Amino acid sequence: MIRIGIAGYGNLGRGVESALSHTEDMELVGVFTRRSPDSVKTKTGVPVYSMEQAKNMTDKIDVMILCGGSANDLPKQTAELAQYFNVIDSFDTHAKIPEHFADVDAACKKSGHLGMISVGWDPGMFSLNRLYGQAILPNGKDYTFWGKGVSQGHSDAIRRIPGVQDARQYTIPVESALESVRRGENPELTTREKHTRECFVVAKEGADKAAIEEAIVTMPNYFSDYDTTVHFISQEELDRDHSGIPHGGMVFRTGVTGLNGENKHIIEYKLTLDSNPEFTSSVLVAFARAAYRMHSEGQVGCKTVFDVAPAYLHPESGEALRAKLL
Amino acid sequence: MIRIGIAGYGNLGRGVESALSHTEDMELVGVFTRRSPDSVKTKTGVPVYSMEQAKNMTDKIDVMILCGGSANDLPKQTAELAQYFNVIDSFDTHAKIPEHFADVDAACKKSGHLGMISVGWDPGMFSLNRLYGQAILPNGKDYTFWGKGVSQGHSDAIRRIPGVQDARQYTIPVESALESVRRGENPELTTREKHTRECFVVAKEGADKAAIEEAIVTMPNYFSDYDTTVHFISQEELDRDHSGIPHGGMVFRTGVTGLNGENKHIIEYKLTLDSNPEFTSSVLVAFARAAYRMHSEGQVGCKTVFDVAPAYLHPESGEALRAKLL
Repeated sequence: MIRIGIAGYGNLGRGVESALSHTEDMELVGVFTRRSPDSVKTKTGVPVYSMEQAKNMTDKIDVMILCGGSANDLPKQTAELAQYFNVIDSFDTHAKIPEHFADVDAACKKSGHLGMISVGWDPGMFSLNRLYGQAILPNGKDYTFWGKGVSQGHSDAIRRIPGVQDARQYTIPVESALESVRRGENPELTTREKHTRECFVVAKEGADKAAIEEAIVTMPNYFSDYDTTVHFISQEELDRDHSGIPHGGMVFRTGVTGLNGENKHIIEYKLTLDSNPEFTSSVLVAFARAAYRMHSEGQVGCKTVFDVAPAYLHPESGEALRAKLL
Repeated sequence: MIRIGIAGYGNLGRGVESALSHTEDMELVGVFTRRSPDSVKTKTGVPVYSMEQAKNMTDKIDVMILCGGSANDLPKQTAELAQYFNVIDSFDTHAKIPEHFADVDAACKKSGHLGMISVGWDPGMFSLNRLYGQAILPNGKDYTFWGKGVSQGHSDAIRRIPGVQDARQYTIPVESALESVRRGENPELTTREKHTRECFVVAKEGADKAAIEEAIVTMPNYFSDYDTTVHFISQEELDRDHSGIPHGGMVFRTGVTGLNGENKHIIEYKLTLDSNPEFTSSVLVAFARAAYRMHSEGQVGCKTVFDVAPAYLHPESGEALRAKLL
């Protein structure tokens, strides 16, 4: 059995806990938290420890799965815990990946552990499909669309506007853009042409709704480059109709082959996810299996999904995989 | 530069030749044929050698890409050429993969080379997506659909019927089955419910068309388990409208997460290919790059797409890939 620890017990941590309950070759040893362990109740009854206790349990855990946030937790925690464990995280601040990689790589090489960063679906499975697509069709174009799904960052941005009580934002790919890509037309698409944004907002009593709407649709970086629609609804409606965390999207590679580029090809990878954190957790668990196996073979340092031979992810042997799945 | 040889110069060999003309880190040294080299004219003017000359060129070629057929050529040729070269093939007789793997593995281990078998899209990219899907969503179902595309085997089977001059067969996924899978309904699908078969047939003068049609739709293994439609057309129409070799298809993994399986997820990988052999060739070329790199690092023996860390496929460095694609 591969022995797993979870560091951080939010949506992602709970997702890892439930994903592990469905594996036969991995077991969850404990959850580690910065809160008071007594205050945390796990869904499966697995024990909760303080983050400080982790370093005394190095002989009990093969891989620590970090389930904190990319903004504040992972930039420090992953390298820190790599002193004691093989580690894996879902760090998703794309622009800071090289820096995070260097930190985790240095920590892992010093301690002899293996670290795996930016594991999930984007970065993660979408990245893999961008890589496979470019490698197979060097003459071509990449497209990534997200949604329909909830963007936590955009929902938070709306909640910070004065007069807003609660909010949920959906990112939605533009159907006509998708169809153009699927027809192999290789369109050049602006930000506005690729996605729209739909916001469900609960205003505080007496708040100026027109001012809130204006603040949303003109907000730089988040909304001003998009066609944004705003719906004001009640807290009850928000809780009833928008409590899920669905997401998904598509990665396309469109390209040509032949001496004169005479033949067109379209590769599409599409995810439709009821629960963004639970899917991310499921990817983390599969790659945690790979991290354990790669470290068992003597690999150390920081890795990403690009460095993982797919066979490491699946519980069955290479022989069985070749016979059943190839 | 990675120096490549092509063994066998049919549709696949020509596809590899043209794919190599678009790479910057790989060069084509020569084409090897069992025909008389004088009788073969390559599209790019690259030299043609007899298959026997290959063994005298071991210092000139890093990877030999085998472009023969799975029925008669590859079962012998891949292991034979593995005595002299790193080799890669697109062996696609799924049931015989374990046997072929063992043969190539033994030859490679004896000679210190790396062999890679069953590289293409199915087996190949579709296999990879079946593996990734199962690893991420262990509670789920796999679906593979093929088409719309030309099946060479089924076209050949029709041509063997007395009275048939020429024929082209298309495999077509059943739209309602696809939609059911995409809606996450996890349908149980029979062979007949997944695909239909459409045949375009040129009858010889005076042939009994009703007898031909009956022979097609009742042919065991090939057609009897499918809803098959037969159209009789002229040779001119066949040549004009059905000379392409398009193909494609979809691999789905549908599954659930959550302690009680409460959240559904759908992964879809879809290929739409104008030219089946040119796409397969493009996959072969990317994996030939990986074969060269893996052998350079000391790996020997037989590998499949499951054993290849994706970063090996792409010409850019790990650092560049992390910065741009992750």
